[in-house]
Amino acid sequence: MTTDTSRLQNMANAIRALSMDAVQAANSGHPGMPMGMADVATVLFQNHIKFDPSRPDWADRDRFVLSAGHGSMLIYSMLHLSGYARPTMDDIRNFRSLGSPCAGHPENFLLEGVECTTGPLGQGIAMAVGMAMAERNLNATFGDDIVDHRTWVIAGDGCLMEGVNHEAIGLAGHLHLGRLNVLWDDNNITIDGPADLSTSEDVKARYEATGWHVVSCDGHDFDDIERAINEAKADSRPSLIACKTVIGKGAPTKQGTSATHGAPLGAEEITGAREALGWNAAPFEVPSDILADWRATGDAGSDLHGAWAARLAGSAHRGEFERRMAGNLPETNVIEDHIAGLIADPQGVASRKASEMALDVINPAMPETIGGSADLTGSNNTKAGGIEGFTADNYGGRYVYYGIREFGMSAAMNGMALHGGVIPYGGTFLVFTDYARGAIRLSALQKARAIYVMTHDSIGLGEDGPTHQPVEHLASLRAMPNLLVMRPADAVETAECWQVALQQADRPAILALSRQGLPQVRLSDAGENLSAKGAYRLKAAGADRKVVILATGAEIGVAMESAKALEEAGIGTDVVSMVCTELFDEQDDAYRADLLPSDAVIVSIEAASTFGWQRYTGTNGLNIGIDSFGASAPAKDLFAHFGFTADAIVPQIHNKLND
Amino acid sequence: MTTDTSRLQNMANAIRALSMDAVQAANSGHPGMPMGMADVATVLFQNHIKFDPSRPDWADRDRFVLSAGHGSMLIYSMLHLSGYARPTMDDIRNFRSLGSPCAGHPENFLLEGVECTTGPLGQGIAMAVGMAMAERNLNATFGDDIVDHRTWVIAGDGCLMEGVNHEAIGLAGHLHLGRLNVLWDDNNITIDGPADLSTSEDVKARYEATGWHVVSCDGHDFDDIERAINEAKADSRPSLIACKTVIGKGAPTKQGTSATHGAPLGAEEITGAREALGWNAAPFEVPSDILADWRATGDAGSDLHGAWAARLAGSAHRGEFERRMAGNLPETNVIEDHIAGLIADPQGVASRKASEMALDVINPAMPETIGGSADLTGSNNTKAGGIEGFTADNYGGRYVYYGIREFGMSAAMNGMALHGGVIPYGGTFLVFTDYARGAIRLSALQKARAIYVMTHDSIGLGEDGPTHQPVEHLASLRAMPNLLVMRPADAVETAECWQVALQQADRPAILALSRQGLPQVRLSDAGENLSAKGAYRLKAAGADRKVVILATGAEIGVAMESAKALEEAGIGTDVVSMVCTELFDEQDDAYRADLLPSDAVIVSIEAASTFGWQRYTGTNGLNIGIDSFGASAPAKDLFAHFGFTADAIVPQIHNKLND
Repeated sequence: MTTDTSRLQNMANAIRALSMDAVQAANSGHPGMPMGMADVATVLFQNHIKFDPSRPDWADRDRFVLSAGHGSMLIYSMLHLSGYARPTMDDIRNFRSLGSPCAGHPENFLLEGVECTTGPLGQGIAMAVGMAMAERNLNATFGDDIVDHRTWVIAGDGCLMEGVNHEAIGLAGHLHLGRLNVLWDDNNITIDGPADLSTSEDVKARYEATGWHVVSCDGHDFDDIERAINEAKADSRPSLIACKTVIGKGAPTKQGTSATHGAPLGAEEITGAREALGWNAAPFEVPSDILADWRATGDAGSDLHGAWAARLAGSAHRGEFERRMAGNLPETNVIEDHIAGLIADPQGVASRKASEMALDVINPAMPETIGGSADLTGSNNTKAGGIEGFTADNYGGRYVYYGIREFGMSAAMNGMALHGGVIPYGGTFLVFTDYARGAIRLSALQKARAIYVMTHDSIGLGEDGPTHQPVEHLASLRAMPNLLVMRPADAVETAECWQVALQQADRPAILALSRQGLPQVRLSDAGENLSAKGAYRLKAAGADRKVVILATGAEIGVAMESAKALEEAGIGTDVVSMVCTELFDEQDDAYRADLLPSDAVIVSIEAASTFGWQRYTGTNGLNIGIDSFGASAPAKDLFAHFGFTADAIVPQIHNKLND
Repeated sequence: MTTDTSRLQNMANAIRALSMDAVQAANSGHPGMPMGMADVATVLFQNHIKFDPSRPDWADRDRFVLSAGHGSMLIYSMLHLSGYARPTMDDIRNFRSLGSPCAGHPENFLLEGVECTTGPLGQGIAMAVGMAMAERNLNATFGDDIVDHRTWVIAGDGCLMEGVNHEAIGLAGHLHLGRLNVLWDDNNITIDGPADLSTSEDVKARYEATGWHVVSCDGHDFDDIERAINEAKADSRPSLIACKTVIGKGAPTKQGTSATHGAPLGAEEITGAREALGWNAAPFEVPSDILADWRATGDAGSDLHGAWAARLAGSAHRGEFERRMAGNLPETNVIEDHIAGLIADPQGVASRKASEMALDVINPAMPETIGGSADLTGSNNTKAGGIEGFTADNYGGRYVYYGIREFGMSAAMNGMALHGGVIPYGGTFLVFTDYARGAIRLSALQKARAIYVMTHDSIGLGEDGPTHQPVEHLASLRAMPNLLVMRPADAVETAECWQVALQQADRPAILALSRQGLPQVRLSDAGENLSAKGAYRLKAAGADRKVVILATGAEIGVAMESAKALEEAGIGTDVVSMVCTELFDEQDDAYRADLLPSDAVIVSIEAASTFGWQRYTGTNGLNIGIDSFGASAPAKDLFAHFGFTADAIVPQIHNKLND
């Protein structure tokens, strides 16, 4: 063993020891992956990743994504050993305990150095694709001096089998993201046992078929790992580095088996491992010479950071770059001006078209937006404001042709948002939030500013029928924490919603937009963004108020017609546009009580599941909705069939008043 | 042109004409795919697919799946031309109109011959994988004389890019499903334009990498199509037949472009197409000689059906085979006996373990069950009752190692359920219903008996943290039409839920099961399946009833403790186990009013989003839940942290009573 090999071996064993000890102390966790990939991770951090432990927020750091998030002790070990302020050794001792930043799976909002939350398999690599896209886009804008970093991923068999991974690698290969390198923990083991229980795939051939460069190495031979990583870096394509490893490497009787995957090794096995690894330190102790080697790795990064900071200081781009990386919007009145224009010259358009009109002014004014669609550009109206395609030949472009990859698109958007410097938006049909839901949840959990442009938001899409008609989707998305679900009623509200969505630095938003044309209902200057309150009184009762109709989006039309008929019958009726329930719920008691008076019959109208509306209408109100699947027919016929006409609704309100 | 070529060309042009005319009449739809694939489809139906138009329910028919469901006029044309009773020509005239069985996308519940609902891309091929699995399993049981058919798929670029397709082909390749043949409409066009806007993939190499046989043909050369299909049939692997086609073939100025994909061609273009194709018949008319050629195709299938029926009539398997294909459960008391055993000897186990105990008696008694897990077998407790692995070497096995492919698993389950003869169940963590949601929705829409075993159903899973802790999932699934969401509280309810789920011939069910141990609360013989009512009074108030607590699953424990404390304070409290809200909503008014009296404070307790509970508690009730994401810690700490203790809940109920 050379000195260097011995040094690296000790460094890697520090990861192994911390991992098995922390899992044992927590009495739960996954020791197999950190122990198996400790050698690879050591070479990677020692020789390749650009980072400065004293400044985890350094904009030009390499991004490292542990896609196999269950192996979280790998990244906690590396961050601690490299000299990040957190996690401390106490944090690691408290692995998986309430309040520890060392959660069961790595959480970006708990610990700097964790670039994204991982655990839901496949999404880490898909987010890394987004990070690599953001890096190239920023590089195209700000140049090599300021933006010049790589994205590294450690992924396991689980990640590679997930559909979202397949979508992501197809996109990465197509876009020639050569600065993306994935280290595959090729250990032939899944939870159920040998990987060949469920797969016979030639993984390398599959990656090559999607435009990737593939290289292999012995994941326990430091020189071979070094060679493979260098080959990967030298290739202009994204690279898969297949690291042949033994899961749980070092555990004398359990290594190489699924027994090491997701359970503590047990005291006896750990004693044996210490012996096998020649690791004599007590639990949660790292010999000072080994720790010093790790810390030196981190120190080298500080020098790189210093040189970069000097370049940035001398750059004309500095102000703009820092603004964008801080996530601050530029000062601009384009949205207000656009709304003023709509008031002056009302536009009765579909809200998807209204969204395009908003983007026509937003995109030129905000260079950080990167749009796209999962192959529904013309339907989602997402290409606007003159932005060009983001392609392998033009990374300065700001429009991504994601292909038919809704989940991959959404995960990539998360990666872009978390990378910073860009604000991603992407479109598909609202019904296909089902395909992307795993990523939408991670947008919300990770507090990522991803904006989902979800058109064709009800049976109003018509003839494409129930497979394409969302019914339960608004409710199902409203149930998700930390997500704004916005359904604007006209062109003015749509512009307001865009403004609100862009202003959310720490949460995602979904814009649910109509396929069909909608009249403009906001015809005077409100002097403020009314949609930002979540709900507002669009029409006040004329006669004595007995009814309040809550409606959203396209159904504001039938709500207004119904109110008119009620007023004609002497029944005072408010109409409240409930643009975004989450924002409304955040208003103060007085505002909410004013819109939802206790002495009126509250009626909800939405061409969607009634599920959840009772929290506003009570059980004595009335819920007009669709609690079955839709049907295939022209939209007008469907609205009549499902009872979304004033003729069908008004008698129900009369009955309720006479109850 | 040979006579045969001329005959086939005319037959294919009949598809083209009907497709462009129907789309034009509906003023919406997708003519490009049917026109592009008309030649391939004609050879397929003429020479290869085994079907009997007079008996669309023939058990041993080949299954044909139009995965590219937007091209629905292809299948409507073929069914009509081949002589199926429906669609009639009037049905086709009413394409995309309310009440027509010719919906925008093919719906299995509207039209016989449509084996599954398609439109959400990628899922058709994934369901076909399930159909091919069911076929092999039934073949292993009943032999070649009774079960011996193929599964055919027509898929487009959109299907092939979706993640679920990648998962599905990985599974099919691994399982050597040689009787599955996918005809790929390789036209280089997606909605956004040329496919190379978003993909650079070598599709053929990718399929080969997953164990598929690949063959190519000119999709407009009848002899070449015939050759390719024969090569595919001859190979023992699943086959991809890459058919190089021109989208919208026949449209003089638009063919080969995305303009033909999703919009009517227009009157002028259609006139030009008629000329180019030499098609002189009026819209919705098919010359009698061409129709006769098509009908002859169908007639040949009737002979095959007759021979098969004779074999079945002579088979000892007949009764069992017919029972299974009819979807009738065997007569058995194993579940009742199991529940009686639990009453006699209570078991305080996790409900996932209780599910395993139920399966231990169900699987031996019901040979139609086919279980599996997306690589969480030991966690989902899905392998039970001695069933063996379903593998390429043992298609008689009944346990599928799906791999880390939640969406692919769920779609395959739909395919199995729709094939008939088997009842699929499959497991993952409840939080990963997000990954599978597109397929769960199709289970519900298609009325498919798929049973989802979703374990680790709350923060009670503990240390794995928020990425793995479902919060909004119960609400989001309850919002979906035609799906039973069941959350049993103990081993007895779990067995009851399994019984209910198995009895649902026309809807799917989700069992939400705990990771953590639960006391058995049902300790006496109820004489009926109480869970079948959706909710029932588990504990009646002792003192004068002032409170009703609704709880589900694991939270029945804290509900009972809270009730005890309230009773000790003289406050009569019912506890209602709300096992399944959908079933409860189906009970009569009297039953529901009895459980939800208007003179009591109604309290819901569920370690999940409170979204939706207000329809039972009203706005004056109390909702105990979690409206944020979870955290990583031992379950006990989390329940305390999030307020799921009697100490935290009882004071809130006192406050509410004193309001």
